[in-house]
Parts: sequence; C-alpha cells; structure tokens
Amino acid sequence: MSITLRSPLDMHLHLRDAQMLTIVAPLSASSFSGAIIMPNLIPPVSSKEDVLAYKKRIMDSIGDSSFTPYMTLFFKPTYTRDFLESVQDEITAIKLYPAGITTNSEGGVSGFEIDDLRETLDAMSDLGIPLCIHGETGGFVMDREAEFVPIYEKLATNFPKLKIIMEHITTSASVDALDKFDNLYATITLHHLIITLDDVAGGMLQPHLFCKPIAKRPEDREALLRVALSAHPRVMFGSDSAPHPKESKEAPGCAAGVFTAPIALQRLAQLFEENNTSFDNLQKFVSDNAQEIYGITPIEKTVTLSKKEFTVPDNYDGVVPMSAGEKISYTIDSIS
Amino acid sequence: MSITLRSPLDMHLHLRDAQMLTIVAPLSASSFSGAIIMPNLIPPVSSKEDVLAYKKRIMDSIGDSSFTPYMTLFFKPTYTRDFLESVQDEITAIKLYPAGITTNSEGGVSGFEIDDLRETLDAMSDLGIPLCIHGETGGFVMDREAEFVPIYEKLATNFPKLKIIMEHITTSASVDALDKFDNLYATITLHHLIITLDDVAGGMLQPHLFCKPIAKRPEDREALLRVALSAHPRVMFGSDSAPHPKESKEAPGCAAGVFTAPIALQRLAQLFEENNTSFDNLQKFVSDNAQEIYGITPIEKTVTLSKKEFTVPDNYDGVVPMSAGEKISYTIDSIS
Repeated sequence: MSITLRSPLDMHLHLRDAQMLTIVAPLSASSFSGAIIMPNLIPPVSSKEDVLAYKKRIMDSIGDSSFTPYMTLFFKPTYTRDFLESVQDEITAIKLYPAGITTNSEGGVSGFEIDDLRETLDAMSDLGIPLCIHGETGGFVMDREAEFVPIYEKLATNFPKLKIIMEHITTSASVDALDKFDNLYATITLHHLIITLDDVAGGMLQPHLFCKPIAKRPEDREALLRVALSAHPRVMFGSDSAPHPKESKEAPGCAAGVFTAPIALQRLAQLFEENNTSFDNLQKFVSDNAQEIYGITPIEKTVTLSKKEFTVPDNYDGVVPMSAGEKISYTIDSIS
Repeated sequence: MSITLRSPLDMHLHLRDAQMLTIVAPLSASSFSGAIIMPNLIPPVSSKEDVLAYKKRIMDSIGDSSFTPYMTLFFKPTYTRDFLESVQDEITAIKLYPAGITTNSEGGVSGFEIDDLRETLDAMSDLGIPLCIHGETGGFVMDREAEFVPIYEKLATNFPKLKIIMEHITTSASVDALDKFDNLYATITLHHLIITLDDVAGGMLQPHLFCKPIAKRPEDREALLRVALSAHPRVMFGSDSAPHPKESKEAPGCAAGVFTAPIALQRLAQLFEENNTSFDNLQKFVSDNAQEIYGITPIEKTVTLSKKEFTVPDNYDGVVPMSAGEKISYTIDSIS
C-alpha cells in the first residue's frame, strides 16, 4: 500500500536558531513544502530586519531543498498599521504568546483588554494577516487551555474578520469553540493525537513527551482525533515540533517540547490507517485545508509513503524524536 | 519559637533494602519513634521469615537509634487464618497493592471480588490486623484514586470491623469517603499537602516531585490540608518517603517516589505555622492519632524544633530529597 501526499505543510514549527537550526531545518525541509515558522527566538522576531535575517539563516541551513519558511512576527500590541504594512509582504502570520507561558515567551502579552489590542488587531484584520495564538492562561496546568477559550471567543467576536488560529489545541473545549465561530481555526499536533497525560506521567515519567500545552485527558484526545481524521475544514496539521538538546530534555527541569518533524508524515499515515480513515482526509489535514485557510500556494512537492516498517532513530544529531527507537508502519519512499 | 513533638510516627515509609536501606533507615530512625514499613521489596515480604529477616536488616542498619519498625506483610488473598495467627505478633498491618500499580507491586491483587478476599479479610478483621491499601485503579492518571473510592466503600461495607487505611490519599474524593465510613482511615504525605500537578509538570518537568499517586488538583490539595491541619481523628501522617538513586530519578523513565523522611518534621512545622494552625494539631497528626488508630504505644522520643532556617541538603548519599537546596523555616534542635 502506498500514499502520495501533495505539498505537505507544517503550520506550526519551531526551527530555533544557530546550531539547532542547522540540525532540524533540513529535516523539515526535506519532506514538507513549507512551514509556519514560530518567532520565539531570544530576542523574539519582531522587526522586518529580524524576519529577513532569520529567513536567510533558515534558507542557508536547508541547502538546496525546496521549502518555504512562512515567516511570523512575535505579536506586540505596539505594532502600528504603518509597521504592519511595511512588513506585510515578508510575513504570513503573527504569533501571540501570553507572557511567560512557554519557551521564550517572556515578552508576550500580559492582558487581553480589547482596547489595548484594538489598533493592532484591526490593522491585521484589514490587511488580512492571520493571528496565531498560544492559548493558555497561567492557571492549573490541566485547565489552562480551557480557561483561555473565553479569550478566544472574545477576540473572535470583537474582530470578526480576523483569522484567529488556536494553535496546538489539546482539549475538547477548544474543539467546541471551533464550531461556534467561523473565524476560529486550529492547528493540531501529531503528539496530541496520540498521547494523553497517561503517556507523560501515568507510568514512569517521560520527558520526551513533556510539552506545553501538556497532553490532556482521553476524551480530549478523542475530540482532537475526531476533527483531525474528518479533516474539519478549519483544522490544519501543525507539528509544534519543538527540539531541545537531549541533555536539557533528560535533566531535572526538563524543557517543554516534543520533537516530531522528521517522523510526522509517517506516523500520521499510520494513525489515519489505524483509524480506517481515508488518506484523502490526510491530504486535507496536512495541506489542502492550510492552503485554503492561509490562501497560500505551496511549492509543489510529492511525498510517497509505503507501508514498510520504519525504525525511528534514537536521535537526530543529539535531538531525541518522539517514538525514538520504536517502529512506525509507514516509510517515506520518495520525494519529488 | 520552638515546638516539641512527642514520639513522632511515620505511618507509611519505604526503607527499601541493601545499600539504600543503610542510607535511609538511619535518617528516619533518628527523628521518628517508629514507622509503618512497606513490604514491596523484590520479592515482596510475604512470610514470617521475610518479616523477621527484613526487620533484622532494618535494626542492623539503624545502629543504636531507638526506633520501632512496625512491620507489614504484602497482602495476598491466599493468606489463611492459621497463617495470619502465626505471624500476627510480628506485624502491625498488611499492605494491599493492586497488581502493577506502583514500584514492585507486580504480585498484587488483580480483582476486588469480595468472595475472593473474604477468608483473608474476615481473619484480619477478627484478629484486629489493619489493612493498608494503595487505592488506585489502572485508569487515567488523574482519575485512578477517585475511581478506587467505590472499592474502598465496598470493602468498608463488607468488613465493618476491619480497619481500612486509605494510604497516601491525594483527592477530595478520598477525603469525602473518610467521612462516610467509620472504619476508613487515611494517611497523608507531606508532599501532597504542598504540591499539585502544577509543581510536577506545570512549569518545567520536576522528576523529584513525580510520585504515585501523582499530585492532583489545587482543590484536592485544599481538601487534604483541611483534614491534616484540623487533625481529623482518622487521619495520620505517612510520608510515603520513597527513595530512588539520583540517577534513576533524573533519567527518562524516572521512577515514582518523593524522598521526604529527613525533612518531614521540619517542613510540617513550617506548613502548620504558615496556616496559623496549632502545633497541638501537628502533634495529633504526626503521632497521637496513629497511636489511637493502631493501638500502639511508641518509644518515647522528644523532638524539639526551633524557628531557625534549615537548608535542605542537595542529596543524602546520592538520594535527592524534596526541596533539595531550598530553605525550610524550622530546624530540629534536639532529640531525646
């Protein structure tokens, strides 16, 4: 059995910088046509110069792969319409982080008063720049995302023409919100379709599955699976592949993030097959929906997978992927 | 300010065996009068010979400390009345583990049909041997204890004269059960009075706070605090201090257990003070209630603490305690 995926897209990707960038960017660039690149560097990507310089570093690190890094800015409520107009051609979206909520998010937003955000969000809305949001409050770890849903809804109500993307959703509460507002969209990771908190901390503690938002309850995973497998038209694949060096994942105070980019398409093929789901829906989930939502036409790239066992490497140059050492039932055969 | 605790007791303690025993036993023996010793060795403590031999190893490892190891057997539904009569003088309780639920519990109970347990539990009831239970199902990690409560209630109903001790309770569901049945008792750990899942996995991942049952929600911690601070007469302190070598706690697949024995009394004093709670209640929580419940008269030992900063060591011979490197506001001044 073989599957052909046309121009797969990863709509939420961390490529980091410096040495890590050179390790992970080629892995995404080889099998994806493009990816939305998260801006949470130190310091965050927040000017046109930052965007152009980071994009150049990405392009330099992927060699001759055909791959589009869809660049983003780190949201600041101080962005003016003039600034956004000046940078618009270089970015695909703007990513909003509540302050301090995840890796390198210290400079994020510390309040969601509509009046404080109106100028920037009105301009984004007018200019057609989507707003990607890491939607978590500072509350109890299992409640943070559900507590953020009213903020999603407030933004969706106040900015009805703004495309708001609920990033890496992990709860049935977010799935429910998706169906209440036409301008709410979502990305879903591979790992949140597979694991629950049980896999992180139900047996022995598994740092390589520790991420933010943390994996939730079985009924949350079911809700995510439902919209992913059915290729809900406002849902896209976004790996949130978030590499950290093995040493910093395997020490006390383990950093948050699951590294999945190099195994994502293979494992998604297995997941859709296990759930007796049409690969047409996988095509929509990993590309078509995103093209429609973002209005982008990605580089043509054809990825052919076949049902042949693939053993996940223990690490990629010192970065441990999800399912390291385990077998996945699909392999990438060819990319053209 | 100083506090005097009379004959403190730790009603749930893991002393392990071999080298670990020689490290941790003296630490408990120095500040506690006695402790209920868990039987989950490999193989489990399940005969009179096992009990006597383990007790001797404990006594050998504590030198000339005055300390009573209150020995337990690892529950098996095959224990006969004759066997229990023969071993009764050597044990204080029997500990039941559902199979596979925590460290070295593989040989535990795999079902809770009353008829399968009746002979052993009737005999225990008649002989006045308390039943200590690790109450978790194999369900989702945050639900396991609450799902077990109906089993506690079934046992309490069917064996009304059996003292059933819900070990290391972590949820408001267990606190509620306590108030429904006069023959249900509970131990509460230090760490579950202090941490929630937020401390384990809400920021960075903290393996030294990873334990079973896992720390739960804020409202669960509040319920535990309420009965501990008020010294509910059917509630006792049991540290569930569960040492593992630093290397096995700090590696992927981290073992479950928090090591608290050497800091427990100091941190409890701080906790009671922070909550403006009478130290009379601390005395009940760490000794008097247990004496009443178990009908034991511990070795006389007086532990005097004063309000003086104590910096928790980074490790005790390679075993990392909770709050390593942090400051606690009470110090043990003298033990007599």
